[in-house]
Amino acid sequence: MRMRIARFSLNDTPRYAFVQKDENDGEDYLVELDGHPLLGGQVTPTGKRYKLDAEGIRLLSPVIPSKVYGLAKNYEAHAQFMHDAGHSDIKHAPEDMVIFSKPSTSVIGPDDPIIYPAGSNDMNFEPEVAVVISRVTKNVTVENAMDYVLGFTCVNDVTLRDLQGLDPMWTRAKGFDTSCPLGPWIVTRDDLNWRDAKISFTLNGHDVPMASGTTANLIHGIPEQIAAISSFATLLPGDVILTGTPNASGHLDPGDEAIVHVEGIGSLRNVVLGAR
Amino acid sequence: MRMRIARFSLNDTPRYAFVQKDENDGEDYLVELDGHPLLGGQVTPTGKRYKLDAEGIRLLSPVIPSKVYGLAKNYEAHAQFMHDAGHSDIKHAPEDMVIFSKPSTSVIGPDDPIIYPAGSNDMNFEPEVAVVISRVTKNVTVENAMDYVLGFTCVNDVTLRDLQGLDPMWTRAKGFDTSCPLGPWIVTRDDLNWRDAKISFTLNGHDVPMASGTTANLIHGIPEQIAAISSFATLLPGDVILTGTPNASGHLDPGDEAIVHVEGIGSLRNVVLGAR
Repeated sequence: MRMRIARFSLNDTPRYAFVQKDENDGEDYLVELDGHPLLGGQVTPTGKRYKLDAEGIRLLSPVIPSKVYGLAKNYEAHAQFMHDAGHSDIKHAPEDMVIFSKPSTSVIGPDDPIIYPAGSNDMNFEPEVAVVISRVTKNVTVENAMDYVLGFTCVNDVTLRDLQGLDPMWTRAKGFDTSCPLGPWIVTRDDLNWRDAKISFTLNGHDVPMASGTTANLIHGIPEQIAAISSFATLLPGDVILTGTPNASGHLDPGDEAIVHVEGIGSLRNVVLGAR
Repeated sequence: MRMRIARFSLNDTPRYAFVQKDENDGEDYLVELDGHPLLGGQVTPTGKRYKLDAEGIRLLSPVIPSKVYGLAKNYEAHAQFMHDAGHSDIKHAPEDMVIFSKPSTSVIGPDDPIIYPAGSNDMNFEPEVAVVISRVTKNVTVENAMDYVLGFTCVNDVTLRDLQGLDPMWTRAKGFDTSCPLGPWIVTRDDLNWRDAKISFTLNGHDVPMASGTTANLIHGIPEQIAAISSFATLLPGDVILTGTPNASGHLDPGDEAIVHVEGIGSLRNVVLGAR
């Protein structure tokens, strides 16, 4: 059985849980844990379990990363989309990795609102697979990189496309508060076919086929990303890497419901708030 | 008397202290504190004090920021230097703020080594005044911004000039481990003439006059920086803003001793390590 690790709150107290399917009713339950799966040491079930939709239960971002790195234009189809949509002068993905960062304050969880900041009129969705780091990671090789991975979750790399052009560092465009929805939980490394994980996106209940893809088409693979980042920065337990969005992104308006889906992980749902 | 807040370790245990000059011997002492000056609540002297050079005493970065923001080309003299040195096509400072970020893992303290990462041959120094935030800061006005400032410290915004051109987001160039030396302590807000703080730089014992300047020449002032950043991201207690380097930067080699000096704060010394 695949292992899923969630963080949740019950009446505002945050806790960790395994998410387990009950063999009798076929439903997912949060199996509450004592301990912190990211800090090592013993993690033991408390004996309590909750339905996902039980009163007072709220899923949180499965981790609070100290930092988030992301890869830009890491799929050829996305690079071509960005060019054809007039967002980029470059027709093909660059040969070198383009690595950006998001701060911890950008992270939100499932069902948390994505809030339009002042000054933007073109918020875009970017559905992706996110990697969650398990331990202190510095100067690791491509061959060893996956030993440092706890697992994977879904991410919406929300981007203010209009500010991206004005803001050469993307500090506002990709780093504003609520720009990094993560969840719904972590699927541990060996429980996801991460070399061919299917990504899709649903906007207001409608599938957006042009936003879908698979990590099989990544230009710079997940071990390569970890090795490259760890060559200059120390990754800490819970740090997150956004591996890239596979194809088209698109506009979000206040009121829109955005759902990132990764096969083998689950669905991350957020609603956009704020006056444009 | 101006208030100076230091973080130090004694035999590897980190603590906070006020730095106070003894009226009799004229020397600075660390007056050890119980409590955390950034988290509010009571802060009381333990009754112990130490000389700065006492055995087992080591000054640490005065804060561990959750994130660091910085301003690029925020002095006209620096923008002109960057142009004349061939690092930039643009002769004048841009009208809009250029805001970048550094992760918490880039921060080191006084006397900690700055380490050349693999792949760079042109590490540069950038002496600056750093602002330390005192409380949760979101959407503050220019008029109220200074109410959110605990104080100021010195920073060397160490930059890999050769990677900066290759790396559009400066994620490696300004975010590598050890790229953010901070210290030696925080001088509280009302104890520094922050509208005209004099910055200078010493390399291997020699003053570098072209690297000096004053915050009086900032293009975007400190309250303006805080207001702008807080319009898109929540600043947390201990977060840091690098206000900009006033004039020329310059090359660092392994073995070099770099000292950033800000009048009214003190001196931040670091030595460069690592084979180029």
